Amino acid sequence: MNTVAIISKEELLKHWLGHRNLTKRTIEKFPEAELFNYAVPGMRTFGEMLNELISIAVPGLKGIVHKQIEGYTEGMPYTTKAEILAVWDQHTEELKGLWAQLKEDEFHQTFNLFGQYEFPIIDNILYFIDNEVHHRGQGFVYLRALGIEPPFFWDRYTK
Amino acid sequence: MNTVAIISKEELLKHWLGHRNLTKRTIEKFPEAELFNYAVPGMRTFGEMLNELISIAVPGLKGIVHKQIEGYTEGMPYTTKAEILAVWDQHTEELKGLWAQLKEDEFHQTFNLFGQYEFPIIDNILYFIDNEVHHRGQGFVYLRALGIEPPFFWDRYTK
Repeated sequence: MNTVAIISKEELLKHWLGHRNLTKRTIEKFPEAELFNYAVPGMRTFGEMLNELISIAVPGLKGIVHKQIEGYTEGMPYTTKAEILAVWDQHTEELKGLWAQLKEDEFHQTFNLFGQYEFPIIDNILYFIDNEVHHRGQGFVYLRALGIEPPFFWDRYTK
Repeated sequence: MNTVAIISKEELLKHWLGHRNLTKRTIEKFPEAELFNYAVPGMRTFGEMLNELISIAVPGLKGIVHKQIEGYTEGMPYTTKAEILAVWDQHTEELKGLWAQLKEDEFHQTFNLFGQYEFPIIDNILYFIDNEVHHRGQGFVYLRALGIEPPFFWDRYTK
């Protein structure tokens, strides 16, 4: 598909990294205990949601880049705030390396993500980002319910 | 910027319309009273958040397409569920018409949105979508807190 690009590959990476930065600062605002204990009835803790985000985005991108179909691993491997923050940073670095290996013309190829979701790669990547925005928004509600002010939604680059 | 497009203009529209469809179904799940009365302490009602989304996305896109800089109008013009749903549908139709007038090579031009936010048009559009995903995620928490099951996050096309 040759056309005038409405967003370049580098711009989409920058956009995603901006979201990851905001999510990291959202995690930092959470008190350790509430990260794994507080939830609105019928919902998961923010810590559980973060384990989901961690298990989807970079493992999914790894499968896409290496064209390796592996099943989705559900679980709760990270149970402290320090572990979550460490793996978040590590995945951000991995993401940059994986992104560099992805070619523009691959975004419209289909990939059977986790052996279950056969969609164009661009759709899977947008899903990773949207899912992060969705659950982080829920984390904002939890913070407010705990009397803690979340970061500004529009601020993606403050460290 | 001539390159292989990672996402086309038509695909980004489809993506946005999928989100608008899911947001509409989220509004439909809300009982009228709670839409304008229920909120987590320190937060707005979902009805107030929807008034924000309505006042930003399509008015913003209208400014972008017509290259008319108008100030942002804050307020709470829609105070019933029926009004919100009607304007949501109306704006979805307007959005399609506006999108058709936007050319690929305009997405990288800067525009001073609402006379305040001077960014590339693609950044403003991604902000409109992200802001909807963010607040809809918060609406999901409110629904759960009210004992109501939200729609499936991944389902963008059920009517």
